[in-house]
Amino acid sequence: MSFKLTILGSNSAVPLIDRNPTSQLLNVNERFFLIDCGENTQVQLRKYGLSFQRIHHIFISHLHGDHYFGLIGLITSMHLLGRKKELHIYAHEQLKEIINIQLSASNTDLSFPLFFHNLSTNSEAILFEDDLITISNFLLDHTLNCSGFIFKEKKYKRRLDRKKIEHFNIHYNFFTSLMKGRDYIKDDVMIKNSELTRDPEFFHSYAFCSDTSFSKEIISRVKNIDVLYHETTFAKDVLERARETGHSTTHQAGQIAKRAKVKLLITGHYSQRYTDLSILLEETKEVFQNSMLSYSGMTFDFNTLYK
Amino acid sequence: MSFKLTILGSNSAVPLIDRNPTSQLLNVNERFFLIDCGENTQVQLRKYGLSFQRIHHIFISHLHGDHYFGLIGLITSMHLLGRKKELHIYAHEQLKEIINIQLSASNTDLSFPLFFHNLSTNSEAILFEDDLITISNFLLDHTLNCSGFIFKEKKYKRRLDRKKIEHFNIHYNFFTSLMKGRDYIKDDVMIKNSELTRDPEFFHSYAFCSDTSFSKEIISRVKNIDVLYHETTFAKDVLERARETGHSTTHQAGQIAKRAKVKLLITGHYSQRYTDLSILLEETKEVFQNSMLSYSGMTFDFNTLYK
Repeated sequence: MSFKLTILGSNSAVPLIDRNPTSQLLNVNERFFLIDCGENTQVQLRKYGLSFQRIHHIFISHLHGDHYFGLIGLITSMHLLGRKKELHIYAHEQLKEIINIQLSASNTDLSFPLFFHNLSTNSEAILFEDDLITISNFLLDHTLNCSGFIFKEKKYKRRLDRKKIEHFNIHYNFFTSLMKGRDYIKDDVMIKNSELTRDPEFFHSYAFCSDTSFSKEIISRVKNIDVLYHETTFAKDVLERARETGHSTTHQAGQIAKRAKVKLLITGHYSQRYTDLSILLEETKEVFQNSMLSYSGMTFDFNTLYK
Repeated sequence: MSFKLTILGSNSAVPLIDRNPTSQLLNVNERFFLIDCGENTQVQLRKYGLSFQRIHHIFISHLHGDHYFGLIGLITSMHLLGRKKELHIYAHEQLKEIINIQLSASNTDLSFPLFFHNLSTNSEAILFEDDLITISNFLLDHTLNCSGFIFKEKKYKRRLDRKKIEHFNIHYNFFTSLMKGRDYIKDDVMIKNSELTRDPEFFHSYAFCSDTSFSKEIISRVKNIDVLYHETTFAKDVLERARETGHSTTHQAGQIAKRAKVKLLITGHYSQRYTDLSILLEETKEVFQNSMLSYSGMTFDFNTLYK
């Protein structure tokens, strides 16, 4: 299955000419998940040939503008272009009001159903799950309520326990139902699903982690994740400013990646003060060698990225 | 005095890769007035080397997103970059709530004073006036309450009537005060200002007119204006769609320019359906020869444009 991450923007608060604010698109087997939506995200999607009408789920980490100011424009364009399919937004509660007041000001009655799902400010949850993927949030340590997101691909649906299947002589017509987690019921026989199947295995996994101060809690949340996107807003010598503003340095992001034993660290959310980002990469690598910068337009193909 | 208009975006509702939604910057002797502020305007300003911290007055024609979605991002960046000077926004009433709810969601206490001035939905007024310029709004005919804006440069402050000045033997120390409109008072003598000065003359004048259906009322409003920016969202054969959506065709814009006897017509707010805009220019010229297209990055210098 395909599992690709395209960076639409990886700059911090103030957008620059070639550095858009945060947004990225995750393609899991042609299902498209948008993570954050800074200003101009809709144009970035166009620029890289990514259809925004195929996005059905948008995850907004927090309500600093560089993570969501592009959302109202994206929604409006989806509407103007005649979208019919529903759109789900996972964000902190106030975003619904922010979007709705703007739709109301322009007398816009959307052409498609829009659903808001509130992120809790103090707990973590599975936000979305289907046959392919489980998406959950976890709490970050920022100056506003802020969530990271974890995307875990399922290699299969529930896995059949072949020995048990043979033992009970279950016909293959039941396999799909069992893989979806249903119990086996036929004639007078009823066997619990848990006796016949095992939990799904994860295939690729990805954690998005911006904006946040260094926090040990994050290490346990992203433990053994394949690919971690972690902000490196500042170089290592700007530790105090990072702490004050709820951000991380290169060394701190490297520490998280190292201690969580991830396979690859992608950095981002760069402060506008850095014209040349190579210093940030060098510093990150001092702690965690397998690190990469992210630029608008880069696509990371997980099938070839870290194996 | 300099009087220059830079186009930051001239596309209609859906932004394209190289065609930003509406925004333009008017520079009157190094005073900067922003007209509309579609998504990504702040980056357009950067791209063309225009400092957004020098803008003190922003005029928003109406609350369709392609005319204001970039405003919250611009205000936020002004704040993040430490602006101190006040900013005035002239817009329909609901914009204040839209901006404030977003500032509140991010706990932003702006570093500078922000003033909102409500545009009336049914009357026209002088919005701003100083020694250099008079800025007023007029009503357009759109699907939402929508204002055009007229910028009239004053060649001078009030003009002294030299004969009267000599007649009353007034010392030149009083000239500045008289040109500002004050009465002459010295010892027991008091002479009304209107006896000693005449109204200022206008030098350059500019009218911004988007979005609107064809409307005869507009002709009287923009009569004898030097330069008219008027939308040509559609070609002449899309008349019905133009009417339904509150927009104008090329021929309609040409008619307004012709009957108002303006010197130059600049077109804009092009529908995304037109990849090649030359057809729109050709059609406009069929009615009004002195017409030009507008593209992002173009600067019109009024001192050399139409004289």
